[in-house]
Amino acid sequence: MRTVVPFDAREPKSRLADCLSDAERTAFARVMLTDVLATVREAGGDPLVLATAPVDVDAPTAVDERPLSVAVDDRFDDLPVAVVMADLALATPVAVRRLYDAGATADVAIAPGRGGGTNALVVDHPAFHTDYHGCSYRDHRRIAREVGASVAVVDSFRLSTDVDERADLAEVLLHGEGRAADWLRDAGLAVVTDEGRVRVERR
Amino acid sequence: MRTVVPFDAREPKSRLADCLSDAERTAFARVMLTDVLATVREAGGDPLVLATAPVDVDAPTAVDERPLSVAVDDRFDDLPVAVVMADLALATPVAVRRLYDAGATADVAIAPGRGGGTNALVVDHPAFHTDYHGCSYRDHRRIAREVGASVAVVDSFRLSTDVDERADLAEVLLHGEGRAADWLRDAGLAVVTDEGRVRVERR
Repeated sequence: MRTVVPFDAREPKSRLADCLSDAERTAFARVMLTDVLATVREAGGDPLVLATAPVDVDAPTAVDERPLSVAVDDRFDDLPVAVVMADLALATPVAVRRLYDAGATADVAIAPGRGGGTNALVVDHPAFHTDYHGCSYRDHRRIAREVGASVAVVDSFRLSTDVDERADLAEVLLHGEGRAADWLRDAGLAVVTDEGRVRVERR
Repeated sequence: MRTVVPFDAREPKSRLADCLSDAERTAFARVMLTDVLATVREAGGDPLVLATAPVDVDAPTAVDERPLSVAVDDRFDDLPVAVVMADLALATPVAVRRLYDAGATADVAIAPGRGGGTNALVVDHPAFHTDYHGCSYRDHRRIAREVGASVAVVDSFRLSTDVDERADLAEVLLHGEGRAADWLRDAGLAVVTDEGRVRVERR
């Protein structure tokens, strides 16, 4: 399936500034992107990187500086199409295949992210459009309802975990199966536990 | 399947003190427990509430004041047995059935929680024991390895979401299908969005 992978090539992962330097955030975002592209391909998808600026990566790339929702909607000319975020460092081929399979059962398949986000989509309805701003999970369900598109929701911890904040790095270290987890370990980051909570610390 | 539902009847949900009063936390924890018991039954399970103090609830109940891991392990006399936390307010019968099904394919099935936790288990190996303290997901995988038990991991956003903190209430409001979501709405809690993040506020 054609799979758009939006990627912020300008200021990636700014909310990780409390544990990674500018250069490290850029490098880490690229490693996650590379993982996601490999995962999409293993799941049988055809990835297209939709980047905010030119990026040197081993996949077809389109540069679009417009807001995310506009840029993504512009790729809905030939349906179905999937949209998978570039920071889903826990995604596995099995999880992405579940997304594709859900897309075959409904006009729109949604894998919610934590905090009301939409981490992955399959769109197969010509009137559906995205709205990634705000509580996009709720908005995407509303838009689907408004245009009469049926919805399937993909219940996946792996797809629900986008990597934005320090706490998310613990999930990568604990569950990641790609290069992003190795990258974090090589950078000296590790999961530590005290009093029942896990934290990520740099050694 | 026999399904143990551990429940803290003494100081439930203390980390929700910034948005719910003592009495409200007690009531909300009970509503979540009731939801989980209904979900387990709908999934074909036989729930047993394992409580730290007597609790009046419509299910068989055992009171055990010992630490969680000891109390749970003591219920592993007749296998298989599932362990499902009482604060999984997003759990649905479909998700719990996926847990049970995974338990049929391996000696131990684990549904990880965010932050290294173990939100649900199916145990069908006589030498396995739990260790809920610290990073229990990692510990449970290690213990399984040490005793030669095969492991299946259940990839579920719903089962990964235990409700401990204010941010978790947004997940209940957005995705909950039981009474816990209604309870929060009746208490005046709602999801608000600004600048792309969702928050929970009280009206």
